[in-house]
Amino acid sequence: MNSIYFDNQASSKLEDRVLDVMLPFFVNYYGIPQSIHSLGSITQNAMNIARKQVAALINAEPEEIIFTSCGTESNNLAIKGGVEALQANGNHIITSSVEHISILKPLEKLAKRGFMVTFLHVDKYGYVDCLELQHAINKNTILISIQYVNPEIGTIQDIKKIVSTVKSYANIIFHTDAVSACGQVNIDVKDLNVDMLTIASSVIHGPKGVAALYIKKGLNIIPQIEGGIQELSKRSGTENIPAIVGFGKACEIAKREYKQNIKIVSTLRNKIFHEITNKIDHVYLNGPITKFRLSCNLNVSIEFIEGESLLLLLDSIGIMVSSGSACASNNLKGSYVLQAIGLNKVLRQGTIIFNLSKFNTLEEVEYTVTEVTKFVIKLRQISSLYLNFIKTGQRIY
Amino acid sequence: MNSIYFDNQASSKLEDRVLDVMLPFFVNYYGIPQSIHSLGSITQNAMNIARKQVAALINAEPEEIIFTSCGTESNNLAIKGGVEALQANGNHIITSSVEHISILKPLEKLAKRGFMVTFLHVDKYGYVDCLELQHAINKNTILISIQYVNPEIGTIQDIKKIVSTVKSYANIIFHTDAVSACGQVNIDVKDLNVDMLTIASSVIHGPKGVAALYIKKGLNIIPQIEGGIQELSKRSGTENIPAIVGFGKACEIAKREYKQNIKIVSTLRNKIFHEITNKIDHVYLNGPITKFRLSCNLNVSIEFIEGESLLLLLDSIGIMVSSGSACASNNLKGSYVLQAIGLNKVLRQGTIIFNLSKFNTLEEVEYTVTEVTKFVIKLRQISSLYLNFIKTGQRIY
Repeated sequence: MNSIYFDNQASSKLEDRVLDVMLPFFVNYYGIPQSIHSLGSITQNAMNIARKQVAALINAEPEEIIFTSCGTESNNLAIKGGVEALQANGNHIITSSVEHISILKPLEKLAKRGFMVTFLHVDKYGYVDCLELQHAINKNTILISIQYVNPEIGTIQDIKKIVSTVKSYANIIFHTDAVSACGQVNIDVKDLNVDMLTIASSVIHGPKGVAALYIKKGLNIIPQIEGGIQELSKRSGTENIPAIVGFGKACEIAKREYKQNIKIVSTLRNKIFHEITNKIDHVYLNGPITKFRLSCNLNVSIEFIEGESLLLLLDSIGIMVSSGSACASNNLKGSYVLQAIGLNKVLRQGTIIFNLSKFNTLEEVEYTVTEVTKFVIKLRQISSLYLNFIKTGQRIY
Repeated sequence: MNSIYFDNQASSKLEDRVLDVMLPFFVNYYGIPQSIHSLGSITQNAMNIARKQVAALINAEPEEIIFTSCGTESNNLAIKGGVEALQANGNHIITSSVEHISILKPLEKLAKRGFMVTFLHVDKYGYVDCLELQHAINKNTILISIQYVNPEIGTIQDIKKIVSTVKSYANIIFHTDAVSACGQVNIDVKDLNVDMLTIASSVIHGPKGVAALYIKKGLNIIPQIEGGIQELSKRSGTENIPAIVGFGKACEIAKREYKQNIKIVSTLRNKIFHEITNKIDHVYLNGPITKFRLSCNLNVSIEFIEGESLLLLLDSIGIMVSSGSACASNNLKGSYVLQAIGLNKVLRQGTIIFNLSKFNTLEEVEYTVTEVTKFVIKLRQISSLYLNFIKTGQRIY
């Protein structure tokens, strides 16, 4: 069996249909849109089409789409560009404690420069509380950024309700990081009524090196990468044409096929969850119950094992997953998202995360469940915590 | 005959050898280096190799290379990241009047924030004057950025001499934008003794969507795109692995083959210049005499014609060039570089720029010269300036 990939929120396989539309822009149409000769107009036309495709996925207008190089850059542009534009009105920003690091780090920098940042708590399922948000707003609040979907625990925030809470305050800009919602949830910027929204290509089987920031018509933010007149001067730099063309195609496919994909991945995801909980005891779901979470995401804590060890054993037989354990999350304390939902350290260490894609199969899932079960038995046999629990019935942590 | 491309400083054709090494990272190795499973390590290894290849092209250490998304981003990072790191020491920056727009625009923004910026003049060949530079330095000077090679008029600055002028002032950081030098000049950061240097992939037959900033070991600059721990936390965001791998390969090829390429392009470039000046009168070279300029670059003013019209006529038969005329440079005044070297408006309007690559052929050049000659005759026949000149021997501008 070939390798089995369950890490699709880190990065997803580039789809053949996407690569096919990109290739001519590497070898034949290698110009830039600013050139007034033919290769310029060909690339300009290709970008126009891609911009329409990306806009259509989120029900935006093409001129509301600014292409960037990655979700991190889009989030940085939204936060810093928004705050620089609005700083005359106030110095208070609100976000949540489970945002992506590309929201949290820019806010840390702004906090050092004198901005006040409120980090909203989340409940045990990862949801922010609209009442807490309402209480956090004050006359200096200029920007609020709340994630649409959490890629670790699959929580889908009720962004529409959150925005309606906020929108009675006229001068506050609302941004949502929708990278993990992209291709998994029906995103409609008009219905949500957000001012800015981040999406990225590499999670929807598009190429790396491209993402977008939706900026509602009429909203002016301050550019962060300055130079030429690309992207309405909101993001200068030679456009990554093949990647932009590929991102457009990936959005077009996602728009047409996402409902069908959701069925595929949720069926497989539910099978993994049910089989694992049937075959292994002391397994706990992290995040909302499966019906109300991101269809492709499963995050479980398997008590008495190290998620990292399970990850490495699975990798040794070609199964790729992620984990919220300390090493796996490049952070000594482990996942800050799992901390924010109140999970204790032992259960944080025992997490394993599956983010499926439409390319996963029933065969892969069945094989994976069998192997996970075998490895958990093996790992528990060498776990002093587990052996003590079996002997005494007590958890000694 | 297929289309003939002479706009290689805007963007160059992706080389087949480069595309070949990129393809597996689209469809097979689509992971990210931060993942601790196998797809993570494969991409990590590939990035390590690419980093070594890029470093080798400019005689840097791999850990001195920070990958970014484009030359514009690298220049923004150098300027803003450098200034933010050094602002406690002073508020004065020196640059030249012929820098790329991605240097000039960030400096305009800094000037609005209270920084003092000196723009050095250039002589009629585009060279800065070390004496003027020395006089411009004061106790508040923190950063100097001078372009290595000008892509419009081909001027190669004597960066080593300029740096030696500066380096007696201990606290000044020196950056050079070497995008147009990349693959055309032997760049040696140790010999030049620069602190930061920008190079980009898309001008050396590598992919769009990737560039690099060399940052000398020990120099700390402030990151501008923040988030995860990518690129030593100096540039966060999901790495554009296929593009980085391709950039590495393009650098490896450029290092091995650039001397041979220089011979090819300079021979062809000289042929265009000599033939055009033989066949057409009132043609003037802009920039240094050919022996001391970028081998691939030719910029001529053809008196009594509009460069833009010539560009469009050439494009109609598949020959792609650029121009410093008003429309072609997206600027009502025309090229600010040509203004800086003191060219009058009529000659600025009559410029046509050839930037050749190793993929150009003698046949293409011969065909182009013939067609340019024909079109110039045609354009002059409808030029009142020219007809008056023929009649009266006077230039009426």
